[in-house]
Amino acid sequence: MVTVAQTKPAHKPQPDLDDVALAEVLQALADPVRLEIVRQVGACPDSDPLSCGQLELSVSKSTGSHHLKILHQAGITSERERGTRKFISLRRAELERRFPGVLDSVLRSAA
Amino acid sequence: MVTVAQTKPAHKPQPDLDDVALAEVLQALADPVRLEIVRQVGACPDSDPLSCGQLELSVSKSTGSHHLKILHQAGITSERERGTRKFISLRRAELERRFPGVLDSVLRSAA
Repeated sequence: MVTVAQTKPAHKPQPDLDDVALAEVLQALADPVRLEIVRQVGACPDSDPLSCGQLELSVSKSTGSHHLKILHQAGITSERERGTRKFISLRRAELERRFPGVLDSVLRSAA
Repeated sequence: MVTVAQTKPAHKPQPDLDDVALAEVLQALADPVRLEIVRQVGACPDSDPLSCGQLELSVSKSTGSHHLKILHQAGITSERERGTRKFISLRRAELERRFPGVLDSVLRSAA
């Protein structure tokens, strides 16, 4: 028997946006806390993504994690771990290809 | 005592869009049946709105009415009664002023 060391992937598996329905993306965005997360993450350049600890939310850390999970599962955010920090970014270009204008217009209205 | 005859208003009272939050509009749109209603209604010119009976939905009449109520309460649709028929239209211009691009981009992606 060969035991293979498990290594933690640096990128959390994320859904293929072709498998995500418009209603699912809208559902994920349809919450004040998640809109606030998307707004704060969207305000950062891709080259300098926001780490979880930098998010300023009015909810507990566990509630924040729950909302981050919903955004990730709907294909709205991408999460990368570097050392002990988790960085969040928007899958802006992919979302724009799949649902043109939706994320951008929501970001403008949520600003 | 004076009795005043109650007349049914031709326009159902609708919310002021300034009182409707972005999350509420997204929540109302975040459902496959409601997206389909919005798509069908949006395909009709304002001068020739769709009547309820013309909507082709895969759900029962009562379920359809429930979804229409949610869209109306979120300020997405306007309902007018003419005789025995109820006509549905989108509050497109008002939504565009309040949440620029949101409804239009959703309509494009739902097409």
